[in-house]
Amino acid sequence: MNDGAEPVAPPAAEPGVLLERLRAGLPADALITDPDVTASYAHDMASFCAAGAPAVVVLPRTVEQVQHVMRTATELRVPVVPQGARTGLSGGANATEGCVVLSLVRMDRILEISPVDRVAVVEPGVVNAVLSRKVMEHGLYYPPDPSSWEQCTIGGNIGTASGGLCCVKYGVTAEYVLGLDVVLADGRLLETGRRTAKGVAGYDLTRLFVGSEGSLGIVVKAVLALRPAPPEQLVLAAEFPSAAAACEAVCAIMERGHTPSLLELMDRTTVRAVNRMANMGLPDSTEALLLAAFDTPDPGADLAAVGELCTAAGAVQVVPAESVAESELLLQARRLSLTALETIKPATMIDDVCVPRSRLAAMLEGTSAIAAKYDLTIGVCAHAGDGNTHPVVCFDHADEDESRRARESFDEIMALGLELGGTITGEHGVGVLKKEWLARELGPVGVEMQRAVKRTFDPLGLLNPGKLF
Amino acid sequence: MNDGAEPVAPPAAEPGVLLERLRAGLPADALITDPDVTASYAHDMASFCAAGAPAVVVLPRTVEQVQHVMRTATELRVPVVPQGARTGLSGGANATEGCVVLSLVRMDRILEISPVDRVAVVEPGVVNAVLSRKVMEHGLYYPPDPSSWEQCTIGGNIGTASGGLCCVKYGVTAEYVLGLDVVLADGRLLETGRRTAKGVAGYDLTRLFVGSEGSLGIVVKAVLALRPAPPEQLVLAAEFPSAAAACEAVCAIMERGHTPSLLELMDRTTVRAVNRMANMGLPDSTEALLLAAFDTPDPGADLAAVGELCTAAGAVQVVPAESVAESELLLQARRLSLTALETIKPATMIDDVCVPRSRLAAMLEGTSAIAAKYDLTIGVCAHAGDGNTHPVVCFDHADEDESRRARESFDEIMALGLELGGTITGEHGVGVLKKEWLARELGPVGVEMQRAVKRTFDPLGLLNPGKLF
Repeated sequence: MNDGAEPVAPPAAEPGVLLERLRAGLPADALITDPDVTASYAHDMASFCAAGAPAVVVLPRTVEQVQHVMRTATELRVPVVPQGARTGLSGGANATEGCVVLSLVRMDRILEISPVDRVAVVEPGVVNAVLSRKVMEHGLYYPPDPSSWEQCTIGGNIGTASGGLCCVKYGVTAEYVLGLDVVLADGRLLETGRRTAKGVAGYDLTRLFVGSEGSLGIVVKAVLALRPAPPEQLVLAAEFPSAAAACEAVCAIMERGHTPSLLELMDRTTVRAVNRMANMGLPDSTEALLLAAFDTPDPGADLAAVGELCTAAGAVQVVPAESVAESELLLQARRLSLTALETIKPATMIDDVCVPRSRLAAMLEGTSAIAAKYDLTIGVCAHAGDGNTHPVVCFDHADEDESRRARESFDEIMALGLELGGTITGEHGVGVLKKEWLARELGPVGVEMQRAVKRTFDPLGLLNPGKLF
Repeated sequence: MNDGAEPVAPPAAEPGVLLERLRAGLPADALITDPDVTASYAHDMASFCAAGAPAVVVLPRTVEQVQHVMRTATELRVPVVPQGARTGLSGGANATEGCVVLSLVRMDRILEISPVDRVAVVEPGVVNAVLSRKVMEHGLYYPPDPSSWEQCTIGGNIGTASGGLCCVKYGVTAEYVLGLDVVLADGRLLETGRRTAKGVAGYDLTRLFVGSEGSLGIVVKAVLALRPAPPEQLVLAAEFPSAAAACEAVCAIMERGHTPSLLELMDRTTVRAVNRMANMGLPDSTEALLLAAFDTPDPGADLAAVGELCTAAGAVQVVPAESVAESELLLQARRLSLTALETIKPATMIDDVCVPRSRLAAMLEGTSAIAAKYDLTIGVCAHAGDGNTHPVVCFDHADEDESRRARESFDEIMALGLELGGTITGEHGVGVLKKEWLARELGPVGVEMQRAVKRTFDPLGLLNPGKLF
């Protein structure tokens, strides 16, 4: 029995045997074997994480086809790496050498949308934005909105329990998954959860699969909870003379009982990078820019109240948008942050540390000190209302010393997050990138029990090996 | 290895040895051995479910004491039944013969309330109402409000993932548990989850424990999410000429995107029982009474809109409360429902079937037909907005034939719920009462994987044996 953490031994079967068995239960167009093409499925957006060469890429269209793949993999002891749109940032979808890449992108049907029950039933390959727009036509809202929402799939979102800008009010993907159909490692089909609003029949296996990064089973169907569409949000921008002052405003806003639909922070480095890239006229001298939004019945009143709290915390300028169009423009700046930071140096490493929001100021201050210590540019944008920071370490991968410093600073940022009572990953997942850090967060008993769960669902260690642990 | 479903064999140790070992790590006042007293810990509120006589009741005050109990139990192979206030309705806290009852009620400290982080950190024995009132002093809100909230403990709420009246807007207990400290079957301490707003580091073991009915580990600390206190709610009462018409209103309210803070239904039997008991002046001729509430900034406007939908669905009278006091009076009627229905016959069996709300009318109609078929009085009150019905089967346990009919009707109601795409338990849990039904809901693969999870955490089958499966 594998310990659930290490990749299995190289496939027992010859590649020829693997392909032959797979073909027996799949249409010809569901298999890709051309190494030039399969190589393009080797990794997600965290391209600097290690990745192997897939033996084959399979693109099933039905549950039965997925079951056939898993039965074959189990029989031949071949590892399987499930993939969605490969927009992940932790290498969680990276191929291992000789694996079957199981891409779910062709299982992309929206099977049902029910406005009365407020649920959608979907296949895993449905693109987040496609679903979000479709439910909007019914006056409904599917909140989770990771930055990659135009590309990423619901299956991938479920795999990493993805977040986004909306989380401060609406929570993450996990909050919206009511039930799942999952193909287990040995090909059996497991149905979990429910399509009712409530239900407590047995252990919550649904939530166990959400965020499991494809390491416990293959999600082939999901029942998702929907909400009524809220009014369009209005955004306020506040400019602060220090990151600490902006964090003070964040704490005051939350302490006073406000429920913004978005509460985002961009540090000086980020604001300047966005300005350089898109010439958006943001205040170049600012030390921290806070964006707050409300999608309440009277957002103007909420923005006014929050504006006052910003001023009290030391904001030098507070600009409430007066229209949805103006709001959209302000959000555009936030959405460009990562792309803009990526222009500073040839490479970036994006951290994802989440701390209790009362410790946000300490987190930002500490990150700034780490940047100085390692002589690096580290821009921070943050889902400030959640205490979820994305320090982006900018470096030149051709410069060996700078790369080493980047890696060390990246780790030191996670250490700081843990020290402040936070987590090494708020929404991006562990993947390959942070697996050495997971044990530090979970502790020995935590790791032992997590591995035990892995073994329970995947005793041969075939599903997405080498990730998480 | 035990299959995780059946109680373990009778304790290997003599009772004397068990007590001696327990005493070695516990203060004298933490043990109760007087059989007259221990007998009173034998069962929860589902008193007609089978229960054994505990060998001893232990009332620890510290995590270390709980660890000592579990180490001893593992060493001597003695089953342990964790208990809170024993207000459960499914026999989930019922003792098994010769077990250690582990009552957590003395671990009742609120360790922290943080308005900025919007979390509370509590021990499991804290009473729901005590916590709810305490956080209110900080302008905060802990939503889960099971009917027993004045007695029930947070640990018990976590064990059953309890619901309440608030769920239609605020969700169940599960939504409010961010992290847990859990003593495992062998006495090790496991920390799960986080105290941050978000976090995806590893599998979600927190949610696995929530709703596990004490069968996977002993919760000794919980980090709970809080919300800002909403405005006080205003309630509307609408009287319908049929249950179907009331259900049509429920569907219309949800389909139009309203978010009531409460949406409750009482059928004719329930309304009459409440009237008889408390002389509340409810319309005795009504076929169904719907209560809708809003805690929005302008609840009057929301009530008016919902009132119109009720009228359109056929309501013969719509009465919006004009004050919080009037609202409280209407809710009083709802809160008395179960107690009032219990006056009809010497005994009751309370079902807890939750269906997609689009099937609520079919559920009520079917329940009515089942009552007629078995010649029984079955009153229904329902968390209508969630599709969660509580059919209360009234019978005389001294009447053998009526008892048999009651049991059969109870089962037929669950069968109907499953047929309508629902669950056998929306919020009360499986316990002893519904364990034969869990397999019907989960299916063979579901049961197999649930049992596998049980074995992973409790390989000797010592924790709350004979429950769930």
